Amino acid sequence: MDRIPILRMGQTLLVTIQVDMLDQMALALQDDLANKIAQTAAHGVVIDISALEIVDSFVGRMLASISGIARVLDAVTVVVGMRPAVAITLVELGLSLEGVKTALNVERGMEMLAHSRKGASRAA
Amino acid sequence: MDRIPILRMGQTLLVTIQVDMLDQMALALQDDLANKIAQTAAHGVVIDISALEIVDSFVGRMLASISGIARVLDAVTVVVGMRPAVAITLVELGLSLEGVKTALNVERGMEMLAHSRKGASRAA
Repeated sequence: MDRIPILRMGQTLLVTIQVDMLDQMALALQDDLANKIAQTAAHGVVIDISALEIVDSFVGRMLASISGIARVLDAVTVVVGMRPAVAITLVELGLSLEGVKTALNVERGMEMLAHSRKGASRAA
Repeated sequence: MDRIPILRMGQTLLVTIQVDMLDQMALALQDDLANKIAQTAAHGVVIDISALEIVDSFVGRMLASISGIARVLDAVTVVVGMRPAVAITLVELGLSLEGVKTALNVERGMEMLAHSRKGASRAA
């Protein structure tokens, strides 16, 4: 398995996670994403996890850390497509994905990014 | 490994192929995609293959057949993100992906779909 592709769509980067993440892959994704944000000056990152049946504390930490890295590079991260069963398990495990924005699906995530961008430019 | 997720973005469906396709997975993708096109009345399908290092005749046939199914359901398919090395090998092997539209990346693919849609509505 190769690296997870990062798709550019205008000012937004889109990542679809389809396989269970292992340490090395997660680190590679963080690296690639940070570089791509810097390269493209992207303002938003959408991470789709609709294919994941399990989100454990490792994946949770990875999402939080990607979110943090993107924030420092002036991009907002939205995690989308979480399955209802995953959401239930996460909360039962006491993992609340703090600091990670979520949306129901890619479309809603993109809308959220568009709004947060508008808010930011109004504040500036 | 589960099914390949199909993301809806407005009138377009987006599929990112990240792993080498096996028979069953390819059939599942065809099925899912046909259902999703019917469900969402999507006008376009973008298939990103930037993660694939090898596109053999099996994958080529699958792309052509997805393209054909989508066409019957009134949707245009664009394959995007092919690596230069893959393009070279494909042509050397005599596989020309006939009937399959291609674009350099997702953004260009989306533009292509927007144009083909405009052309269609003008003709109607």
